[in-house]
Amino acid sequence: MIREVGFRERESVNSALEKLISRLKALDIVEVGVYSCYGHVLAEDVKAPFEVPPFDRAAMDGYAVRAEDTFGASISNPILLELSGSVEIGEVPNISIEPGKAVKIVTGAMMPAGANAVVMLEYTRLNGNFVEILKSVTPMKNVSRKGEDVKHGEVILKKGEILQPQDAGVLASLGIEKVKVYRRPRVAVITTGNELVELGERSDGAKIYNSNNPMLCNALLEHRFEAISLGIARDSKNEIREKLESALKYDAVVITGGTSVGPKDVVPEVVSEFGEIVFHGVSMKPGMPTAAAVAENKPIFMLPGSPAAALLGFYTFVIPALYKLMNVRIVARKWSRQRGILQGRVPSEIGVRSNVRVLWDDGKVYPIRISGSGILSSFVRSNALLIVPEDREGYEEGDEVEITLLRDITEVFE
Amino acid sequence: MIREVGFRERESVNSALEKLISRLKALDIVEVGVYSCYGHVLAEDVKAPFEVPPFDRAAMDGYAVRAEDTFGASISNPILLELSGSVEIGEVPNISIEPGKAVKIVTGAMMPAGANAVVMLEYTRLNGNFVEILKSVTPMKNVSRKGEDVKHGEVILKKGEILQPQDAGVLASLGIEKVKVYRRPRVAVITTGNELVELGERSDGAKIYNSNNPMLCNALLEHRFEAISLGIARDSKNEIREKLESALKYDAVVITGGTSVGPKDVVPEVVSEFGEIVFHGVSMKPGMPTAAAVAENKPIFMLPGSPAAALLGFYTFVIPALYKLMNVRIVARKWSRQRGILQGRVPSEIGVRSNVRVLWDDGKVYPIRISGSGILSSFVRSNALLIVPEDREGYEEGDEVEITLLRDITEVFE
Repeated sequence: MIREVGFRERESVNSALEKLISRLKALDIVEVGVYSCYGHVLAEDVKAPFEVPPFDRAAMDGYAVRAEDTFGASISNPILLELSGSVEIGEVPNISIEPGKAVKIVTGAMMPAGANAVVMLEYTRLNGNFVEILKSVTPMKNVSRKGEDVKHGEVILKKGEILQPQDAGVLASLGIEKVKVYRRPRVAVITTGNELVELGERSDGAKIYNSNNPMLCNALLEHRFEAISLGIARDSKNEIREKLESALKYDAVVITGGTSVGPKDVVPEVVSEFGEIVFHGVSMKPGMPTAAAVAENKPIFMLPGSPAAALLGFYTFVIPALYKLMNVRIVARKWSRQRGILQGRVPSEIGVRSNVRVLWDDGKVYPIRISGSGILSSFVRSNALLIVPEDREGYEEGDEVEITLLRDITEVFE
Repeated sequence: MIREVGFRERESVNSALEKLISRLKALDIVEVGVYSCYGHVLAEDVKAPFEVPPFDRAAMDGYAVRAEDTFGASISNPILLELSGSVEIGEVPNISIEPGKAVKIVTGAMMPAGANAVVMLEYTRLNGNFVEILKSVTPMKNVSRKGEDVKHGEVILKKGEILQPQDAGVLASLGIEKVKVYRRPRVAVITTGNELVELGERSDGAKIYNSNNPMLCNALLEHRFEAISLGIARDSKNEIREKLESALKYDAVVITGGTSVGPKDVVPEVVSEFGEIVFHGVSMKPGMPTAAAVAENKPIFMLPGSPAAALLGFYTFVIPALYKLMNVRIVARKWSRQRGILQGRVPSEIGVRSNVRVLWDDGKVYPIRISGSGILSSFVRSNALLIVPEDREGYEEGDEVEITLLRDITEVFE
């Protein structure tokens, strides 16, 4: 007697989303320049075209020497080496080091032939044309070795990474100007409702301004998708059909209102002329009448007309599906904080704030060893930051720490 | 004897940052359209230009009635009312309800004169030209009252809010097409170093590609700031001076390299010709040689040349200072998860995922009561989302819950 209005079956959020995602394929692959690659999803493994550093270089300011010449040196027993020139950063040295000689060198400069170590400036004293060495060095001390950071051909960034500023730095350091990424979807936005008028139009007494289109265009903007507002369709099959025809020139369509099962709710029926309905009705509040279809790899999201339900449906279904069009699933977001157990000791000095790059993986936090020059690759091999505050002398292995993700954690679909 | 190279004094990160921030004022105020306002910082309090809803409207599909006419109705004792027309959404009803009469109405439609309640369709039965009322209603039952969501003149968004998609929805629903926001800073990026070549240039054996500029341009892009790369200055005062002159046409300058205290580290000296050095040397690793100056309200950030130190210095100093140019400090980021104690009960149905809008404030979580139509304002009065998963029957007052922020939490400077 008392009618039950509603859906006969409602799907769980996860099952509805997975059904939708499984029916979508990645868009085409395009190239993007390294100066503006942020947020794009990498569509290829990027391999290092040369070694980094590309040559042995000084890791400290000081004197390039043959390590053997310094053995036994100390403050009380300085060893004298003859100064035979200097090497500046960016120049190819035209000197080679003979036994008993030293060459002045700065951090980052190419090691001259014959030299195999750098004595730090602090442990030397200039004496006319001679340098007094006050401390011995072992071979390769204070030298960043060719290839120690990145090997030639090594995969430096994997397909499916969402490119971050540090990745742009890594790519540039390898001389790479462009990378292949998945094209970002362009998304058409339509709202339906006889009661609606567009912003800027005059509203008579009973009309309501279209708030869903501005809201959803900004929600797309927030995630760097291009949004095309196609305005309002009245609750008529013809108007909705016409708007949908225009909308399907883009890669995805978001349409709000008219998604329930009342007599005016004609959206799912019209959409089904264009593509297959994947789900209609989900166990979610607000947002029960949410639906989705796919027409030739173009998702058509049908969100309820209520702005709250529309926005929550957008975050729940639209964003993950749009990322599927770029072949990835986001598992954890950049800047989110995560906890984990430290897998190694992290020393730090009292009074200094240390920004330690770590790799966070499934509740474990691995400190990343940073070699002399391995600074860029440390950002690629790590994915998170552990900040040691000024009042702590580091952390011990086994400590539970909180880290901040410095990149989105993604899963790539095949 | 053994020289100590470095800074005589190093400032703590917080003290350096606060000194810098205290010397910066907000940029000018500009207007932005509601369709693309996402991420802009509001420079004015926005007041509602009319009430929301702007008229009494039906909150359910059913029949608009005089509540008094339904008193005593039940399934076993239906009351007959005469059907005298219908009101569609978006139209101004030309009917008024006389005693003993009912008008068909849909959710969102304007209540006809004389009616003060809606009987849900489920509790009625159509019988020729009469409606059988199977359940009595109290006055204003299933009616969204004029102004119940937002009062005329009520401050709906405060100066200092970082505008979100839901705010765009609220503004549009009030017919507001543009709002006043702080202009976003345009930021010039320079790097220094004799060893550097620009991407695309041929690198001889000892040259290194400029990776800091692409990295920092992307880091600015990540935060929606306009980045202008001015390329490489060699380690010469003249070249740095020339680049700085061009850079100071913009609102802020980021310059990397040459910030330490060695003989080639001429950046702070040249910068001091243009403005006052605010700090030089901070207790941070990496990034100790970080410095900043201010020239006529334009911050000049001097970051170390090492990419890791440059990027961490960027996030530590540049981002907060650029937000100060828009008059706010970000206290907690949108999408971050926070914990708090629930200040009221949150019911939910087993098998349904509930998205509950809550206000998170200093470790307390307040559920937001959502009136019939109060959907948009619920997003403005709340700042976070509490998701009740399918397997839970809600939460009790006093439960510790985890919420997701749906907006950045900001402090506004005066």
